Amino acid sequence: MEEDTVSEGAHLRGPVLIIGSGLLGASIGLGLRAKDVEVFLSDISPSTQAVAEDIGAGKSVDVARPNFSPELVVVATPPDVAATAVLDALHRYPRAVVIDIASVKTSVREAVEADPGANNRHYIGTHPMAGREKSGPVAARTELFISMPWVICPTPTSNPAAVRTAEALAVDLGAVPVRMPAEEHDEAVALISHLPQVMSSLVASQLQNTPGTALALAGNGLRDVTRIAASDPALWVQILSANAPRLVGILKGVREDLGRLIDTLERPTAPGARLDMAQLMSEGNAGQARIPGKHGAPPQSFAKLTVLVDDVPGQIAALLTEIGQIGVNLEDLRLDHAPGRPVGMAEVSVLPGKHQLLVDELTSRGWKVIQ
Amino acid sequence: MEEDTVSEGAHLRGPVLIIGSGLLGASIGLGLRAKDVEVFLSDISPSTQAVAEDIGAGKSVDVARPNFSPELVVVATPPDVAATAVLDALHRYPRAVVIDIASVKTSVREAVEADPGANNRHYIGTHPMAGREKSGPVAARTELFISMPWVICPTPTSNPAAVRTAEALAVDLGAVPVRMPAEEHDEAVALISHLPQVMSSLVASQLQNTPGTALALAGNGLRDVTRIAASDPALWVQILSANAPRLVGILKGVREDLGRLIDTLERPTAPGARLDMAQLMSEGNAGQARIPGKHGAPPQSFAKLTVLVDDVPGQIAALLTEIGQIGVNLEDLRLDHAPGRPVGMAEVSVLPGKHQLLVDELTSRGWKVIQ
Repeated sequence: MEEDTVSEGAHLRGPVLIIGSGLLGASIGLGLRAKDVEVFLSDISPSTQAVAEDIGAGKSVDVARPNFSPELVVVATPPDVAATAVLDALHRYPRAVVIDIASVKTSVREAVEADPGANNRHYIGTHPMAGREKSGPVAARTELFISMPWVICPTPTSNPAAVRTAEALAVDLGAVPVRMPAEEHDEAVALISHLPQVMSSLVASQLQNTPGTALALAGNGLRDVTRIAASDPALWVQILSANAPRLVGILKGVREDLGRLIDTLERPTAPGARLDMAQLMSEGNAGQARIPGKHGAPPQSFAKLTVLVDDVPGQIAALLTEIGQIGVNLEDLRLDHAPGRPVGMAEVSVLPGKHQLLVDELTSRGWKVIQ
Repeated sequence: MEEDTVSEGAHLRGPVLIIGSGLLGASIGLGLRAKDVEVFLSDISPSTQAVAEDIGAGKSVDVARPNFSPELVVVATPPDVAATAVLDALHRYPRAVVIDIASVKTSVREAVEADPGANNRHYIGTHPMAGREKSGPVAARTELFISMPWVICPTPTSNPAAVRTAEALAVDLGAVPVRMPAEEHDEAVALISHLPQVMSSLVASQLQNTPGTALALAGNGLRDVTRIAASDPALWVQILSANAPRLVGILKGVREDLGRLIDTLERPTAPGARLDMAQLMSEGNAGQARIPGKHGAPPQSFAKLTVLVDDVPGQIAALLTEIGQIGVNLEDLRLDHAPGRPVGMAEVSVLPGKHQLLVDELTSRGWKVIQ
């Protein structure tokens, strides 16, 4: 690969070889095929590869011509084997840019750099911040990466054209490339991804022997906190192992905070006890408020209103049509519907400046706006 | 109050006096007014009471006639002052059933029973398992309790007619009364409500000094785990204090599990380390799977499919109309919509037996069903 001729301009020419055609690999394939980029797939499991081909994510690498020279190789294997697959691709396709998408970056980079024979200037570690609870190519989505951040981790010796190729992939899939050093990335995901995963699993594991009568009282708080406890153990063992040092530091801090709370709760009427509890809750408020809204919107940037609908399918359709007529953009919609009852509550999110207008207009049109 | 003449039959006659017209008190008022039950309101804050009256939750207790004798008094104050308000009501309205709705039951019961002069046979501790992130009467909803559990905690000396009155309130508001001893209730909520609250706040509090570049990578996992960290500190200090002994036991167990994980992560390549991590994750899977679906449905009882819509308001309306035409009931709907892009993903939940039918029918009608 000559230094500056690959990927001039912002888009991929192709062909792209995707190694590992599970949820992420197949979604990348679907996204690239939607842009008319030629995609070849390779997976250690013939059935996984066949499904990915069937859904249109690309063609089997076996049908590529003998002197096949991909512009880009995307290693979308489980994290444990990513470095090996990267080194193999760097060797096999010396003119290609090779990226991986594992959720921990320094461990892959270190393994790649440890191989003295590899041309690691063509390797760029990346991490698309996207996913679904489901796994496998059947769950793949063309739009999985749209407006999601895609972290790109160049090193001082990375080939600049290779970095641009990695960013072109992100852009072609509708994602937002974000450059940061691998160490900064791993510290970030330890906090914003691995910590909540661990805490969710710790809470959920307490419920194994909980009586059904207690679980029947569960509300959305418990459901929200434990939702990601349904994650795949095999994948997460790899992620936690790879990022263990950073995660340990964070977890030790949490353990200290938990210990302080336990001490406080053992003497809840002691002087200062309530202040301690209030401080934890307020710090939780402050931290939570800093999390940006979805798609990069400012935190809590939408205003919500709830509309009662008596007959769900017909009235939701009518409601949305009228919101469009009123001229307000629907930013988000959630429908809460008690089974066995036709009534439902439609929770509509709009820009705060449109909230009162919408409440007034819908009310005057006869809708029951609850709040 | 004669032993058996109150509330024969399943519904309240009224009048009902609600002490505390915040979110829950005002919602109870709205629900009862919708059933034509006469409601009087009393709140320590004149403006809170005025707003509750304005939204139709009831009339000021000041306009009640001099010999006013409510059938039922609902104490809907913050937990700290619930017992005092219960004792006051038992004294002031000796013919009434008095209930409270605080989220910790044994502490209120013990305070009531500690007063030798109180006729605590007319007092029934209850707890409606419903709420909203918002507070105050402005956020009150008539339908807040529909299909939600409402825990009723009779004691061996409770007047049976009083228990029936408490249950009649729940039924009149569309809730599902569930009898259990106060101790069992407090143990249950320590696990399914107070534990997740504490863990959510612990995670969120770690984010106070996180760089914006790291927070920008946050996904739905972090958002879900930290959603309830936005809870009101003043209320939760009261709840945690009241249920401290039970919560301490649970938190000590979590601290042990966290310590074991930290030890494992400090030597992630040691023999058995990966098995330890996998075990925590699997136990989290198992616990999470035991949580029932919303409205008492079995866990994960709906099948989901995602449909791409190009033009959100019009196409959502059309989609829902067609789903109705196909004859499938819409159980739940979530719309994910990237701002600045007209495209959105509508995630539709249906009964598993209808899933394939809907996928096939929508696809044949030209909809882009992603998964």
